[in-house]
Amino acid sequence: MISSATNIAYLTGFYGSAGLLLQSPDEDVLILDGRYTTVAAEARERGALARQVRVAPVDSTYDAAMTAVLAGFGARRIACEAEHVTVSTLRRWQAALPSDWQGPGDLVEPLRLIKDATEIAVFRRAGRALVGVAGRLGEWVAAGRTEREVAADINRGLERAGFSRPAFDTIVAGGPHSAHPHARPGDRRLAAGDLVVLDFGGVLEGYCVDLTRMAAVGRVGDQAQGLYRAVREAQQAALDVICAGVAAGAVDTAARQVLDAQGLGAAFVHGTGHGLGLEVHEAPRLSRLAGPEERLLAGMVCTVEPGAYVPGIGGARLEDDVLVTDTGIDLLTPGPRDLLTV
Amino acid sequence: MISSATNIAYLTGFYGSAGLLLQSPDEDVLILDGRYTTVAAEARERGALARQVRVAPVDSTYDAAMTAVLAGFGARRIACEAEHVTVSTLRRWQAALPSDWQGPGDLVEPLRLIKDATEIAVFRRAGRALVGVAGRLGEWVAAGRTEREVAADINRGLERAGFSRPAFDTIVAGGPHSAHPHARPGDRRLAAGDLVVLDFGGVLEGYCVDLTRMAAVGRVGDQAQGLYRAVREAQQAALDVICAGVAAGAVDTAARQVLDAQGLGAAFVHGTGHGLGLEVHEAPRLSRLAGPEERLLAGMVCTVEPGAYVPGIGGARLEDDVLVTDTGIDLLTPGPRDLLTV
Repeated sequence: MISSATNIAYLTGFYGSAGLLLQSPDEDVLILDGRYTTVAAEARERGALARQVRVAPVDSTYDAAMTAVLAGFGARRIACEAEHVTVSTLRRWQAALPSDWQGPGDLVEPLRLIKDATEIAVFRRAGRALVGVAGRLGEWVAAGRTEREVAADINRGLERAGFSRPAFDTIVAGGPHSAHPHARPGDRRLAAGDLVVLDFGGVLEGYCVDLTRMAAVGRVGDQAQGLYRAVREAQQAALDVICAGVAAGAVDTAARQVLDAQGLGAAFVHGTGHGLGLEVHEAPRLSRLAGPEERLLAGMVCTVEPGAYVPGIGGARLEDDVLVTDTGIDLLTPGPRDLLTV
Repeated sequence: MISSATNIAYLTGFYGSAGLLLQSPDEDVLILDGRYTTVAAEARERGALARQVRVAPVDSTYDAAMTAVLAGFGARRIACEAEHVTVSTLRRWQAALPSDWQGPGDLVEPLRLIKDATEIAVFRRAGRALVGVAGRLGEWVAAGRTEREVAADINRGLERAGFSRPAFDTIVAGGPHSAHPHARPGDRRLAAGDLVVLDFGGVLEGYCVDLTRMAAVGRVGDQAQGLYRAVREAQQAALDVICAGVAAGAVDTAARQVLDAQGLGAAFVHGTGHGLGLEVHEAPRLSRLAGPEERLLAGMVCTVEPGAYVPGIGGARLEDDVLVTDTGIDLLTPGPRDLLTV
């Protein structure tokens, strides 16, 4: 019983916000309500829906449809996604169908972890398109413009580059706001002396890419320049150690050591990176929290994005996307990472 | 133990994508990681953070911080949000802290259901601003333009109207796409004879409003015009019955009877409306699935949005937002609902 919309998309080619996928040894049944049955029929027509999938429409409720399909399977043991099913949903399912329900944890995520050739081809195109958008930042970032105006330009740039939507809310954080890793674009106008964090991503054919570049408005102080240089060095150190077989935590350590050595350890308040795929945050996590058994494998795609944030001075972050290979990395976002001075 | 980010925002005034709120009879503790402690400190400075909240930073993991706070409380019974906690998270919490964990279902949602005067004031401003954006549709919808271009114009309009972001992915669905209630804007160019569904919303000070208007490109066929008229009549029927004390399902029935009578019952594939608040879909649901005990109460805010979708002809939907009152409704989105001909 797969209920995560993303996992359903991965397994069937159907993209929607609702649905339940029931897999038995004999057949795969996708339960959809009236909003989505036509979408699925059209996906089937253009060959986008996995061939073995049968679509079952919801007549009254999802629970009733699910119970009917599972009864048809003669299911006695049902595995569901413990990571995605809430306590109250599982309670409801158990009441509707007294079988042996099991929540064994990640059922589909391990499959998604290693990208196949088709997925990698999408990532390459998406990465290049994203770098193309970054190449236009110099037209958009300027003293006197608000963060929201710049973010709107970036969003338009993503659209024109062919992305179906931004992968997350675009971050444009200037001056004092740059010291917030997750700042929302506001109405403050960029001004001379600002460091500006520009963090944006796009979704192409379902897959997310994610990039951060830095700009300086006019001349920024020595401390701000130092932040940028430290983060760049930390990013390079992280990129240098990535390779299939390396512990995910070791990549974080490589970046952290550079920042620690410059007294910026406490200013690096997040992990070094995260996996990319149908979601913008997925496994692996390149962080201190990764266990020693969490190792990078060839075919994983992840971000590398150390940052340092100092209230009163500002913040800096650089982020690129890489494909892990047996010998190191393929950089999916090849382009300049210089501090863009506007 | 409140873990839903939206419920934490409602109770504390802190808006973030992560955090845990622990409430004991003696104090409220908000556990935040390094990304958010500065955000919370600034919210406190400008008076946006609830006064009784103490912020506890995460040193290593959320689970460790949570366990420490609960140990400090001497908590023996802990209520968590069964609707928001996954099976695997509850399992992890139970392993970290062997107490009596209870998942009693909705803890905070019942509080959110009835809007107070401050919230209603935000809704009024947001509704008027959204109608203002709708007033510009005639500038944007035109033959030869793609759905995506129109959607980008609407998104820019939302931004200029002061919304912090769209409340959901803007829908612009023309011609054949209009027959999909949840169509994504595509690269098809609008053409003479198209019905166009324009469904968009914005977030103002955290609160979501949601509107759907219809356009016709040039002259549309009689059947398409009939669809629009039927939906408009159905919407009016629904608006006419709303009043505190009425069953939520009765509002859906009122709209459905109009469409049924015109042979469009099967074409109305979704419910008549949903509650609005910090989320764009919340209780109450105005649908056939609502139980007889689900009654509208004064202070609820919801959408009223019947639709009819006929492959080969197109689709129509009209949507407005209302505040339920003791005597009927206050229309939050007052403005023309005519079929906009471009």
